This record gives sequence, C-alpha cells and structure tokens, in this order.
Amino acid sequence: MSVTLFDKILDRSQIISGKDLETRYHHIWHMDQPLNAMCLLMPASTQEVSSIMKICFKNDLPVVVHGGLTNLVGSTETTGNEVVISTERLNKIEEIDSSSRTMTVQSGVILEHVHDAAASVDLLFPLNFGARGSAQIGGVISTNAGGLRVLKYGMTRQLILGIEAVTADGTIISSMKKIIKDNSAYDIKQLFIGSEGTLGIVTKAILKLEEAPSSRNAAYIGFNHYDNVVSFLKYIDAHLAGKLSGFELIWRNSYEQMTSVSHAVRPPLPYDYNYYVLIEALGSHPQNDHAEFQILLEKALEKEQILDAVMAQSPSDVEWFFRIREDVNNLVDFMKHDQHFDISLPIPLIGDYIGDRYESLAQIEGVEQIYAFGHVADGNIHFMIGKTHLGLDLKKEIDHCIYDGLKEIGGSVSAEHGIGTHKKDYLNLCRTPEEIILMKSLKSSMDPKGLLNPGKIF
Amino acid sequence: MSVTLFDKILDRSQIISGKDLETRYHHIWHMDQPLNAMCLLMPASTQEVSSIMKICFKNDLPVVVHGGLTNLVGSTETTGNEVVISTERLNKIEEIDSSSRTMTVQSGVILEHVHDAAASVDLLFPLNFGARGSAQIGGVISTNAGGLRVLKYGMTRQLILGIEAVTADGTIISSMKKIIKDNSAYDIKQLFIGSEGTLGIVTKAILKLEEAPSSRNAAYIGFNHYDNVVSFLKYIDAHLAGKLSGFELIWRNSYEQMTSVSHAVRPPLPYDYNYYVLIEALGSHPQNDHAEFQILLEKALEKEQILDAVMAQSPSDVEWFFRIREDVNNLVDFMKHDQHFDISLPIPLIGDYIGDRYESLAQIEGVEQIYAFGHVADGNIHFMIGKTHLGLDLKKEIDHCIYDGLKEIGGSVSAEHGIGTHKKDYLNLCRTPEEIILMKSLKSSMDPKGLLNPGKIF
Ligand SMILES: Cc1cc2nc3c(=O)[nH]c(=O)nc-3n(C[C@H](O)[C@H](O)[C@H](O)COP(=O)(O)OP(=O)(O)OC[C@H]3O[C@@H](n4cnc5c(N)ncnc54)[C@H](O)[C@@H]3O)c2cc1C
Ligand SMILES: Cc1cc2nc3c(=O)[nH]c(=O)nc-3n(C[C@H](O)[C@H](O)[C@H](O)COP(=O)(O)OP(=O)(O)OC[C@H]3O[C@@H](n4cnc5c(N)ncnc54)[C@H](O)[C@@H]3O)c2cc1C
Repeated sequence: MSVTLFDKILDRSQIISGKDLETRYHHIWHMDQPLNAMCLLMPASTQEVSSIMKICFKNDLPVVVHGGLTNLVGSTETTGNEVVISTERLNKIEEIDSSSRTMTVQSGVILEHVHDAAASVDLLFPLNFGARGSAQIGGVISTNAGGLRVLKYGMTRQLILGIEAVTADGTIISSMKKIIKDNSAYDIKQLFIGSEGTLGIVTKAILKLEEAPSSRNAAYIGFNHYDNVVSFLKYIDAHLAGKLSGFELIWRNSYEQMTSVSHAVRPPLPYDYNYYVLIEALGSHPQNDHAEFQILLEKALEKEQILDAVMAQSPSDVEWFFRIREDVNNLVDFMKHDQHFDISLPIPLIGDYIGDRYESLAQIEGVEQIYAFGHVADGNIHFMIGKTHLGLDLKKEIDHCIYDGLKEIGGSVSAEHGIGTHKKDYLNLCRTPEEIILMKSLKSSMDPKGLLNPGKIF
Repeated sequence: MSVTLFDKILDRSQIISGKDLETRYHHIWHMDQPLNAMCLLMPASTQEVSSIMKICFKNDLPVVVHGGLTNLVGSTETTGNEVVISTERLNKIEEIDSSSRTMTVQSGVILEHVHDAAASVDLLFPLNFGARGSAQIGGVISTNAGGLRVLKYGMTRQLILGIEAVTADGTIISSMKKIIKDNSAYDIKQLFIGSEGTLGIVTKAILKLEEAPSSRNAAYIGFNHYDNVVSFLKYIDAHLAGKLSGFELIWRNSYEQMTSVSHAVRPPLPYDYNYYVLIEALGSHPQNDHAEFQILLEKALEKEQILDAVMAQSPSDVEWFFRIREDVNNLVDFMKHDQHFDISLPIPLIGDYIGDRYESLAQIEGVEQIYAFGHVADGNIHFMIGKTHLGLDLKKEIDHCIYDGLKEIGGSVSAEHGIGTHKKDYLNLCRTPEEIILMKSLKSSMDPKGLLNPGKIF
C-alpha cells in the first residue's frame, strides 16, 4: 500500500512518511521514540478527513487519531501499519456566540486556547486539568476528560452540545446544534464521547460555556476520621448552594511529601492530621463570599466536624494552595519508577478501601513510595506508586492490589483516563460480560472492518 | 400465539388478556379507550422481564413498555398484536444512600415517590414536572425528561448514575454503579436514556441526588425587548453563581390568559409588557438570599435592563407565581381543540422566531388561540394552539408553520417530549440523513428483529 493514495486529498507537505516519521512521536512523554506508522496525515477540514477515511475503508487501512498526545493509557500508540491522522491543522475557533454561550471549534483546538477565547468574552469553559496546554478538544471529547471542577460543572460529556464526526467508511455525521435540549431521537453524540477514537473521528464540536465566576476562595482542612470528610462534604455542599467547585482529598503522607519540597509548596496546615482536604468555591460576590465561607468553616470547627482549617487570604494564596495539589512532579520526581492509578468507587467506602491498599501495597517487595489523593467528591482517587524496577510481575502485582477489590464494591478501574491499551486486562473487573459483548457489537456495527484505533479498549 | 406462553414466568393474576384488557388503556388521557394488545404482563423483577423477553424474542412477539403513560408523543400506543409490559409492579425503592447521595430504584417507581423518599433524608431528586404523580423512573429515563430545573441540575441524562436494562433477546445489561465518574470504555447507559423503549427495557436505576436547598426565591419581571431578556439572563446567571434554577419566559398574551382565570392566578405584574419572565433561585441562606436577589433586581431596574419586577415575599407567593406558569389548563380549558409543541432553538433567535410564528399562525384559518411560553434559558419553547376542528390538513399546516424554519437555524422539533409516533414525519427536519441512518443501524444492531416498541421514532 502506498502513501500516494492520499496525494489527491492533501498537499504533499501534509503527508509525512518514510524517514520523516522519525520527527514525530506517539506521546508527549516519549518524544525520543520515533513514530511507527505507515504515514501521518494532516487534514484541515472535515471534508478532508472524510476523503481520507473513504480511502482507508476501501483499502482496509487501520487509522489512529493523534490529538494532543497527552492521554495516560497508551491510546495513541501505533504498531507500524497504521495511517495516523493528526488533528493539529484542524485548529480553528470558528465562532464564539456569547448570547448562546457557545463556542464552535474544530477538534484540533488546544484546550487552553478555548479557555483564553472564552475568557475574552467573560465566559468560562470549565474543563481544566494539567495538560491543558497540549490536550485538544477532540482528545478531550474522545476521552470524556474530567479534571478539577467536575463537581460543579460535570465532565466533558456535560459540556458538549454538538459534534461533527467522521465514521469508519468516511460518512460525515453532523450533529452541530447550539441547543441545550434535544430529544429528537437518539443522542448519537454520546457514542463518540469517551470512545477513545474507536467509533469515529471527531472533527468539530460546539462547546457549552458558562458565565465566568468573579470570586474564588479556597481552604485547607484537617481531619482524623474519614467519616467526617464525608459529612463535611455534605455540609459544605449544602451550604454553598452551587458554589462548591472542588473538594480534593490528600492522605497525610502525600500531603507531607507535596508540601516539603520547596517554599513554594510550604504546608498551609501542620502535619497533625490523617486527611487534608482542599476545597474551592466559585462565586459572584467578591466582597461577601470570603466571609460566608469563613463562617461555614467556623461552624464546622465548633461542632468538631473538622479539626483545623486555613483559608486562602489572597489570589496568590489560592495559587499556593492549588500548586500543592496539582504539581504531581513533587511526588514523581523522587521515584525511581512510577505507576499511577485513576480509580473510582462509592464515596463512603473510600476511607477503608484506600487505607487497606496502603497496607497491602506496603507488603509488596519493590514498592518504595505510596501516595494517594484525589477528587473525593467525585469518588475518584489517584494513586502514585514509586517502585524499584520496571518488571512486569511487579507491575501486575500492584495492579491487582489496587484493582481486585473494586468489582465487589462497584468501582471502576478508570474514573477519567480511559482504558486504551494499559487497562484492557482489567476492563472485566468493572464491566459485566454482557456489557462488554454489547460494546463490542456496537463497535462492529459502527466499524465493521475494525479500522478505527485497533487494539484499543478491547 | 397464546398467552399461556407466559404461564411459567408469571402468576395468572399478573397476565391480563382477552376481555380484561378493556380495563387497561394506553395513556392517562385516554382512559376510556380500551387497550389494544395481545396481553399485558406485570413482572416484578429484572429476571422476570428477561424471561418474558426471551419468549418474545423466540416467538417474534413485538413488545411495548407501559410506564406512567404520561408521554405526550403517542409512544405508548399499541396496534393490537403487541405484548405490553407494564412496570407498575417494579415499584420498589431498594436503597437510599445518603452518603453516596444516591437512590437505587426499580423502574416502575413513581417520580413523586422518589421526591418524597429523597426529602425524607434532606436530599433532592431535582427532576420535576407536572406529571410527577404518575410518571415513573423508567419512563423518565426512556424519554430523557426535562422539566422546570434543567438550568441548574440538567435533564434526566445528567441525573442517572446506573442503569439495568433488558435487551431484545432477554440479555440483562447491568451497569449499576454508584459512582459519578466511570470512563471504563463505552458509557452504554447513554443508549437507553431517551430511546423511548426502542433499544431496551429499563428495570432499575441508580439516581444521583443533590443536597436539598433551604431557600427558594422567585420573581416576575417585565420586558419590552427580547434582547434584554437575553442580556438579563446572562446578568442574573452570572450574579447568582449557581443558584439560578428557573428562567421561564411567557409571551404577553399567554400571561394575560394565564392570569385572568381566577384570583389564585391573579397577575403579579400589570399587563404593560411584551414579555414576562419568572425566575427562581435555590439557595442555602434563607436570611440573605432574598435581599441579595432584590439588590440584583434593583440594579437591573436602574440600568433599565428590566422594566418592572416583583418578588415573591413568602412561600405562598412562590406557589402563586409558579401556579400561573404551571397550570396549563388555564390555557387549554378555553380551547375547542388543542395542539401543543415543544421545540428548541438557539436562545438569541427565540424572540424573532416565535414572533414570526405568532404572525403566520394567526393567518391560518381554524387557529383560534396561540400561546407561547417556555424554558427560555434552555432554548425550549412550548406553543399551545387552540383550533376549531381536528382535521388533519389543519394539523399539518400548523405543524409546518412551527417546524419548517427550525432546520435552517439549528433547532429541534422536540426539546423534551421525544418523537414517538406524533413527530416521526418531522424528524428529518432536525436530524441529517446520515444521523438517521446511523440511528437505524444502532437500532437494528441492538434489536435485529425490530421487536421493541415497533413503529415509534422511525
Ligand atoms: C499532566 C497531565 C494531567 C492530566 N490530568 C487529567 C485530568 O485531570 N483529567 C483527565 O480526564 N485527564 C487528564 N489527563 C489525561 C489527558 O490529558 C486527557 O485524556 C486528554 O483529554 C487527552 O487529550 P489529547 O488531545 O491529548 O488526546 P490524545 O492523547 O491525542 O488522544 C486520546 C485518545 O483520543 C483519541 N482522539 C484524539 N483526538 C481525536 C479525535 N479528534 N477524534 C477521535 N479520537 C480522537 C486518540 O486516538 C486517543 O485514543 C492528564 C494528562 C496529563 C499529561
Ligand atoms: C401534565 C404533563 C406535564 C409534562 N411535563 C413535562 C415536562 O415538563 N418535561 C418533560 O420532559 N416531559 C413532560 N411530560 C411528558 C412525560 O411526563 C414524560 O415524558 C415522562 O418522562 C413519561 O414518563 P412515563 O412513566 O409516563 O412514561 P410512559 O408514557 O409510560 O412511556 C414513555 C416512553 O418510554 C417507554 N418506557 C416507559 N417505561 C419504560 C421502561 N421501563 N423501559 C423502557 N422503556 C420505557 C414507553 O414505551 C414510551 O415509549 C409531561 C406530561 C404531562 C402529562
């Protein structure tokens, strides 16, 4: 099969093949590994993507889409015979409609550019996470990304009004409406959201924007008992009435490590507690919101629901507080090798489940560091585990230690990051055989030749 | 085919056939029309539903599910040869977990019972609409119902964490997790939500509950220009920071009619304005929220964004304000025959689009009353049209008048109610041919014999 197949569609400069592929890679963390592929194509329109897919369909060529290449589950890996479609030239913001509170974008637009464009008209695209400078809207949609403000605004699924996508045979499915409610038959955009490029290629989207908040408050809070974390979550959520936007739990040893690396991340609270919670509230009354927040914390202190609390007194304090939680490098930099997790489970069970994992992990030879923290209000906990070597047996032992108990308690091996290639072996721990059969039949109904991102998820 | 097929699964008292079917009906508004069906079955467990479907699959028997029978699009109609599965005995609330803020229910539980059960633990299931005393969770899920508080809490799709459903061949698909985030492969519950019983039978669900608000404020506001309605929506939404829960627009003539029937619905504002908006805010500070709301309205009055405003001063005022908007009978009772609509379109275009429809409808012979009102913040407007007779030509002329312009502006023929049988002819006005082909291929992949709710949607 020859790359000249695509000459009619794209200019030669938009087709990368042969030795030139060495300048490309499959993940931002592996820029030193040259891309293994038949060729890489850079279409700039939905029509071009459709034409490419028609050729691939006719010639049985497998296709992998490359967005920002920031996924954490190996879902942009290639084996060598695939056509890679990079969305980097699908990078136009087509419209911002501030009355409809929508933004229409091509799928290669970088998340941070969406943030900036929304902010320029006093609006907010609330989806936010560490990789915002590289991750693209198409990748975000295909992974149903979450991040720091799911509690208030939802995951990507809740922030997308319209999608245009190209299916395996090159058909353009255009569901581009600016409307919030549409019950005219099946909501097919849901199929593309979170399907990791296995059901279609997203080329455009209409994003739902929110009014930008004008106040931001944050606090660190100390607890010794997990039950109090849960009851405090209920209390503060009820009393902030829609303003609570973040509720992040950090286990004591993680907090100690996160706050001991430099002055920039010095500890807001002393090392006296078993659990530290970082909460954030987004409001519209810069004058009152701080005082309201403080009164709520004082009441919780009085009734001993919380043991200690410190509020950010300035925007730079807020940044300091978040830097502690967000800069995962402060954990990873001290590890020889790391392995990370992204599980979810029912909120009331988190304290015991994670506590037990700490104990079992500590028994595993080769495990050097264990850090847990996460979006506890979403039931989503991350583990970062440092280990002495990259051996497969050790990796699997750690995987099983974290994952095996999830089935029984109705958890998931992936809250946010997806399955990709890394978690394929564990999918059956959190989905039933019947669910997986149904998923596979959807896949073969939409992609009968199995051309879209082959080998991922299943 | 004989009803004895089902004798092994259900007690005879749970199988209704022959003359006994005359006591049953297909819609709460047509209790006088006896049900046309092969039989009606009343299973009480997922297992029984599965066994029934296995028999139906083997014997090619079409199946229609009957929930609360309150849908507004003919989607529980039968032709006579169908097996009707009534969910009335699937009526157990299995668990309320106030720490996880979830409720696990069988699909036949009535929406109002869910409200009551949530309230008993100071939680809220926010989905709410006029038919709450009859509509069931299974029906609500299968229609992706909306209602009065979508703005703050979303449609049904956003309120469902887990689903158990039975597919056409009797397979039980159980996706019952209490977790908020789950990116472990495809989110197949999305398929069942809003598919009007054509892809599977929902037997259970896990509902997401919210902390109950402790303050409720409401106001009526007068406008002469639609543009100001839109800018006021942005203003009040930004300043209420998550508390705005309702923003309902009523056209002047509808307001006049809604407020002139009795003292119970007397007008809160005089008949001086072109548009009336009812807003609702749900908060957590009974003391402060009223004053905050009032200050926001005063500022809007000062800058002449709004022309007049009156706030509810007591809970009974709030009820009075909502009674005006909710009691659609005050419009319908004075019509010989009525025809109603449930369209959605981009918010900034609503003023002109509805204004034009008022003019064109007035030209149609046989149209006697025209009332528009709706969830404007969701882009969702209802029309209630009174007419002299039930003739099909008149119905179609009115349909076309309302629907035909929607395609061009990216609207939908159904914001909330679905397609059923009533809107099949208009589906292609708001979905592309490629979308409809994809939907049909999904349908035939999941229900290859076409047994589930045949003739609905397509
Ligand atoms: C530092 C860091 C922090 C992170 N934090 C979070 C977090 O808090 N929450 C979270 O959810 N994730 C997080 N992630 C994971 C990652 O950023 C997200 O999954 C992101 O959405 C991926 O976007 P991308 O453009 O990089 O996609 P890619 O990595 O390029 O692709 C991801 C998948 O989507 C497919 N794909 C990409 N574009 C398209 C398209 N247009 N059409 C169809 N398929 C497509 C790819 O084939 C692949 O399967 C983080 C990653 C990093 C590196
Ligand atoms: C006065 C009034 C006000 C209304 N207001 C609103 C409103 O504001 N917003 C709104 O969205 N709707 C509204 N509706 C419409 C209606 O109430 C909703 O569509 C409701 O969700 C239907 O629920 P039900 O149990 O009555 O379903 P049914 O009418 O019994 O069924 C609806 C559809 O779902 C299918 N179905 C039912 N149960 C199941 C199941 N367990 N599994 C699979 N399929 C199933 C049926 O086959 C049918 O296709 C209103 C209706 C009335 C009468």
